[in-house]
Amino acid sequence: MDEVPGSLGTSASFALRLGQTVFSSASLLFMSMGVQFYSYTSFCFLVTIMGLVVPWSFTLALVDGYSVLVKCPIRQQGILLVIVAGDWVLSILTLAAACSTTSVVDMLLRVDGSHCPPKFCSRYVISAVMAFLSWFLSAASSLFNLWLLPSL
Amino acid sequence: MDEVPGSLGTSASFALRLGQTVFSSASLLFMSMGVQFYSYTSFCFLVTIMGLVVPWSFTLALVDGYSVLVKCPIRQQGILLVIVAGDWVLSILTLAAACSTTSVVDMLLRVDGSHCPPKFCSRYVISAVMAFLSWFLSAASSLFNLWLLPSL
Repeated sequence: MDEVPGSLGTSASFALRLGQTVFSSASLLFMSMGVQFYSYTSFCFLVTIMGLVVPWSFTLALVDGYSVLVKCPIRQQGILLVIVAGDWVLSILTLAAACSTTSVVDMLLRVDGSHCPPKFCSRYVISAVMAFLSWFLSAASSLFNLWLLPSL
Repeated sequence: MDEVPGSLGTSASFALRLGQTVFSSASLLFMSMGVQFYSYTSFCFLVTIMGLVVPWSFTLALVDGYSVLVKCPIRQQGILLVIVAGDWVLSILTLAAACSTTSVVDMLLRVDGSHCPPKFCSRYVISAVMAFLSWFLSAASSLFNLWLLPSL
């Protein structure tokens, strides 16, 4: 069986998962430290989704790290299917949350400057950028695992 | 070779493309008829993306309709790859535009009621719903064609 770089149990996958964990945690922290996040639906949505992505990515990072260490990657179709489906759903939700946050930040900056003190606004922007990076890595993981799926 | 229902050149694919064309046209029309759409970045983004999705879906609907009529589906890997990639990019952009629009509409309704007269706001909401439906069909088309790709 071919080894797909970036699929479950490889060191590239470990790097992707670690990146997802870091970016989604950063997004969550930057948004949570802005005290006004609960007044906008999009920001609450982002916090909720990032709260789901962080444990999911962290768990899979642990699984990948273990697989790399013992040199025995998991190759069961059922498990892989669950992981691909989970990645898929979470990456769609992450993209949705990132876009919503970006559009709300854009609107706060443009339409009504008084709603957005610079101290909070830069945090919102950083949070949105981190969410986009997290989405990008999550979509990459999902595609690599989807590619591996038919060969099992 | 197996026939994948919903893949290029089948009647299910024709129905999907027709649905995409109808929903994205409806989204575009409802947003364009609201005269204030150019004052918000997200709404301009939605109009731009829908302006790309309408001709793309319409062209592929014509191709599918022709394939169904002459009973000779296109089965060339290069063409299918371009269609899958195009569907993929457009469905991601459609989702992004739909989410942005939804969050801006939500914000207009919540934070500042005066910015959003009911006549326009209901149009924005309908436009966002249509964009979500268009995204759903577009993602389905993309997945079906992706499923067909390895068998060529």
